[in-house]
Amino acid sequence: MARDERGPTAQSEDFSTWYNELVVKAGLVDRGPAKGTMVIRPYGYRLWELLQSELDRRLADTGHENAYFPLLIPESYLRREAEHVEGFSPELAVVTHAGGKELEEPLVVRPTSETVVGAMMARWIGSHRDLPMLLNQWANVVRWEMRPRMFLRTTEFLWQEGHTAHADEAGARAETDLALGIYAAVARELAAMPVVPGRKTPGERFAGAVETVTIEAMMRDGKALQAGTSHYMGTNFARAFGIRYAAADGRDTLCHTTSWGMSTRMLGGVVMTHGDDRGLVLPPRLAPWQVVIVPITRGASAGEVVAAADELAARLRAAGVRVRVDDRDQTPGWKFHEWEMRGVPVRLELGPRDLAAGTAVLVRRLGDAGRETVPLAHVPEAMPGILAEFQTHLLERATRFRDEHTRAVDDWAGFAAAVARGWAVALHCGRPACEDDIKAETAATPRCVPLDGRADSGACVRCGAPSAYGRRVIFARAY
Amino acid sequence: MARDERGPTAQSEDFSTWYNELVVKAGLVDRGPAKGTMVIRPYGYRLWELLQSELDRRLADTGHENAYFPLLIPESYLRREAEHVEGFSPELAVVTHAGGKELEEPLVVRPTSETVVGAMMARWIGSHRDLPMLLNQWANVVRWEMRPRMFLRTTEFLWQEGHTAHADEAGARAETDLALGIYAAVARELAAMPVVPGRKTPGERFAGAVETVTIEAMMRDGKALQAGTSHYMGTNFARAFGIRYAAADGRDTLCHTTSWGMSTRMLGGVVMTHGDDRGLVLPPRLAPWQVVIVPITRGASAGEVVAAADELAARLRAAGVRVRVDDRDQTPGWKFHEWEMRGVPVRLELGPRDLAAGTAVLVRRLGDAGRETVPLAHVPEAMPGILAEFQTHLLERATRFRDEHTRAVDDWAGFAAAVARGWAVALHCGRPACEDDIKAETAATPRCVPLDGRADSGACVRCGAPSAYGRRVIFARAY
Repeated sequence: MARDERGPTAQSEDFSTWYNELVVKAGLVDRGPAKGTMVIRPYGYRLWELLQSELDRRLADTGHENAYFPLLIPESYLRREAEHVEGFSPELAVVTHAGGKELEEPLVVRPTSETVVGAMMARWIGSHRDLPMLLNQWANVVRWEMRPRMFLRTTEFLWQEGHTAHADEAGARAETDLALGIYAAVARELAAMPVVPGRKTPGERFAGAVETVTIEAMMRDGKALQAGTSHYMGTNFARAFGIRYAAADGRDTLCHTTSWGMSTRMLGGVVMTHGDDRGLVLPPRLAPWQVVIVPITRGASAGEVVAAADELAARLRAAGVRVRVDDRDQTPGWKFHEWEMRGVPVRLELGPRDLAAGTAVLVRRLGDAGRETVPLAHVPEAMPGILAEFQTHLLERATRFRDEHTRAVDDWAGFAAAVARGWAVALHCGRPACEDDIKAETAATPRCVPLDGRADSGACVRCGAPSAYGRRVIFARAY
Repeated sequence: MARDERGPTAQSEDFSTWYNELVVKAGLVDRGPAKGTMVIRPYGYRLWELLQSELDRRLADTGHENAYFPLLIPESYLRREAEHVEGFSPELAVVTHAGGKELEEPLVVRPTSETVVGAMMARWIGSHRDLPMLLNQWANVVRWEMRPRMFLRTTEFLWQEGHTAHADEAGARAETDLALGIYAAVARELAAMPVVPGRKTPGERFAGAVETVTIEAMMRDGKALQAGTSHYMGTNFARAFGIRYAAADGRDTLCHTTSWGMSTRMLGGVVMTHGDDRGLVLPPRLAPWQVVIVPITRGASAGEVVAAADELAARLRAAGVRVRVDDRDQTPGWKFHEWEMRGVPVRLELGPRDLAAGTAVLVRRLGDAGRETVPLAHVPEAMPGILAEFQTHLLERATRFRDEHTRAVDDWAGFAAAVARGWAVALHCGRPACEDDIKAETAATPRCVPLDGRADSGACVRCGAPSAYGRRVIFARAY
């Protein structure tokens, strides 16, 4: 069958193709002209803006100030921190010519901004009175991708990157945890993603970090998505860039720094956490339109019905609901299908008979929900509650799914079975060679050592050597 | 005298040095590591955010949707529109290597996005039902600068760029004017800049445009600053990228497109429109802090005074005022000087005696304003009015300055004198050779043909040939 004839691929049929088709078809994103780039279309960008504004507010409330650092960074800056340059070199895009000439020193397009922020902090920080310095920037970054995938791995993506400098380790570690806490809250409360916060094992740390903490989310194919990370850098970057301060007693002291980021990758996470065979399912708090009203117009009554739909929309807007009236020249069935595919939480159908009866038909975008007749007069006051309930339901459903696909395992056969369909929670020796071996056998990698894991120790699930970390580790295939 | 000993340069002494020093000293911006780049510090970035949020709201209210297009554009895309590539080639930064390899086709870092937006619009637009397509993006762009200057000419800057496609010329021209109208309103109402809207002469048009309209602002050194431009592209980009639609009668038709942008350059405009010898003067609607409270603390009463300052700040915040209490460990005099230099519109001084009397001392950041004792109880309710009056005063003062430095001139001596201290409004023949001649003699260029100029014609002020445009032209030296 030709591609266009056979309709969209179902999630249950081929998860990967379902995702790749859906994000484009739903109008979230499109492929850009240069390899691996994406265009974020208005429907996807609005989702990002809604996430962004809430995250920005929480960062401001905790004392962070927004700033903006340059996109182009002298190549030599990256080399000042040895692990950092090693980690990022393979992914760099490099400007070698500008203004019609070859540059004396190539400029890299920022893959992340620790180096340039470090150089500036070194200039700005003089005394302990300047600390902590809590900065954040909203920016684009470029990391060359061999196997791009919309939102998850693209040559360019949007994110915020926090960069902070502190007088000591305790301050910097508290900041690292604070940022992760904000990410976890935003993921749960806005994206309805029941993320697991945990520590990365040494092999999975950010290039140049002393410690990386992460929130890991489970997608509906059982894979893990790293949805946000926060890094304690120790004095590595402070030493490389000279971020020093005069302590109260006058001593010249190195700062301890952190960085942390959350990106447009989250949009892919929302798609793969809640979507189903019919398309997207958007959490109300991130849905560009939380409610769509479809007027069922036939002949003479059309004007009256559309007017009533517009009036209902105005009342919903006054109640703080993001609503759209779809009065386009298409059949109701076409519109139902379109808005289901695009994941709008609630659809209201309004026809002449409904109008006469003073009711509307309400349909929730949930796998198991039926049609419900509701009195028109009560719709606006009821809607915030209906949306809040929808939001809660998504988080609960995703939590159930995650728990049903997570297994504590103590033997290799159980481990392999667990990571084939979800997450394995296992004891591990912590040796890089053993991690590599597990990855070669199952494609699974250590995602994190959950912060709330109980003390546990014993034999490594793979090699039988004594376990590390004092706790179990989550292993999974990952995006 | 050594640099650090002689204090900041006064505006009246050396405008250019005053500007360069002040934007750094006031904490708006700093120089980045790569040549010509800038770091926007929190104080400057907040200004940008305040401008941005209001401009974004007005664009949304007029039906524009935000999207995001890739930073890296295949070099060949720029070549598709001949004038466009000719205009931008000298300013391009080019990525030739990525992911450790030389690229088959170099990628340019976007200097503006008409080409990539055009390619995507061609994919998205099929029928007249898809029109108009009204897109906007907030983004960074890179244009290589030989003579960088913070905010005004930097290798990278932030802006919004609107890109729209329409069914016909009338629709696209109306959009071009709509965008300019929004820019003019934002410049006047937020930045208190009395901009003059007008049409660019052919030599000053955007590369690839059929027509460019602009808002021009006068800086306090009499030079002009182009503060926002809007371009009607005709079918130039539609033809180059295949942006076509099926009209209602089925005919395959080229779209008419527009683009328009306003950038962080506006921040430089705010500095140079309102600043004075003592430093910045910020319009209240863009001021990160509209009011600063300086507690005058001495010995025992310190705690009480700071508590009263905090309480006053809370009441001002409740009245919608952006306020900061400066309780840092510095002398009041140091703080007065600092906040004057940083342009905070209103300072409130609060000491033990004021507190006992139930008053505060209010000082406006205006050249001619004295100190005023105000009853503490009334400060919060009075402040929004005081700030609105301050905002109006700045616009009026800048308008007066502009008018006093603008002269209608009919002879060459008058022209040369006018552009030495401000703007000349003159008849011009419109010949590029004559424009070049004027520029060589006086450094002045045609800024715009004001939209509200009366019909006028006669002899060219320079060469005596018959005048063009049917109206007078504003000439000025420009940033």
